[in-house]
Amino acid sequence: MRKPEPRPRPAVYLAGPEVFLRDGIELGRRKKEMCARYGFEGLFPLDWDGAGDAGAAADRRIYRACLAMMRAADLAVLNLTPFRGPSADVGTVLELGFLAGLGKPVFAYSNDARDLIDRLRALGPATRDAAGGLWRDAADIAIEDHGNADNLMLDMTLAEQGHPIIRHAARPEERYHDLAGFEACLAQAAAALAAG
Amino acid sequence: MRKPEPRPRPAVYLAGPEVFLRDGIELGRRKKEMCARYGFEGLFPLDWDGAGDAGAAADRRIYRACLAMMRAADLAVLNLTPFRGPSADVGTVLELGFLAGLGKPVFAYSNDARDLIDRLRALGPATRDAAGGLWRDAADIAIEDHGNADNLMLDMTLAEQGHPIIRHAARPEERYHDLAGFEACLAQAAAALAAG
Repeated sequence: MRKPEPRPRPAVYLAGPEVFLRDGIELGRRKKEMCARYGFEGLFPLDWDGAGDAGAAADRRIYRACLAMMRAADLAVLNLTPFRGPSADVGTVLELGFLAGLGKPVFAYSNDARDLIDRLRALGPATRDAAGGLWRDAADIAIEDHGNADNLMLDMTLAEQGHPIIRHAARPEERYHDLAGFEACLAQAAAALAAG
Repeated sequence: MRKPEPRPRPAVYLAGPEVFLRDGIELGRRKKEMCARYGFEGLFPLDWDGAGDAGAAADRRIYRACLAMMRAADLAVLNLTPFRGPSADVGTVLELGFLAGLGKPVFAYSNDARDLIDRLRALGPATRDAAGGLWRDAADIAIEDHGNADNLMLDMTLAEQGHPIIRHAARPEERYHDLAGFEACLAQAAAALAAG
């Protein structure tokens, strides 16, 4: 009799701005360890192997490797913590959109628990057109006021899949290292998979 | 003899932060007029009809309408001008990723002609690990140095389709109203379609 093949672990694409940190590889290692504890295999962008694109420039090799990892992944966990401004890292957001376009399950967290509007109002003066009207920033540009963590296109991408962005108030010095929200996403993903 | 049906004009999804401007509807009207001149039909988010989702909250209705427009579109032109920080509007970036995930042709422009790294170095001090090494910002976070307009995932999404982000140095007061880059995208899209 043939032995049953071991069931492969679902592969999770790990997106977030940690790739820009000095200890990004170590953070990726910690995330992959946590994935394994939840029955997943983590795919981390800094583990890419661009050898197949030897002639291409670095940005093209990185892009192609990330795309290949996203296509290979069964699902993704994305770090949408604000990065260099009031909103998430645009590279991570591009990936969130791409994965949603591919129809993959996506889970996300932010280490800033505030609404986007509260973050923007803390950054500068804002005024309201009238009672119940739109909020506008100092440049007279409207601020969304839907109670979301970020631009509604981000929040709704997660919410429409049934698992809104998990918000976690990390200590400022742990903003990019606190993995409590990440672990909550893994638990959410494991429960979603178990429920079929 | 039956008259031949008029060939429908390709539909272009019009993405960008103009939806947050006081004159967003007027800007959308100008963009749709330019689309018509290039043989396209423009689909502008502020024209959405959320009547089919009467019970849903505004953010969910807007999200669903934008998704429906993107799925219906034959191609898209996206405004990646920096918005509330060094990078593009995250809502627009989410849409860029989603459209790429759907395999749709995407064209994009930015009304800031600078490289991301030059924009970031203008915003605050940056240091280099060593000659030829990585640049880092004041928070010790790496800055990409690939000569791109924004995060490489954005630039490469366009470049891999054969038409890199069109950069246009708009006057600061025309940052969100100058449509020269937008028109250049339409010309690019018309040429790409003519070439088959």
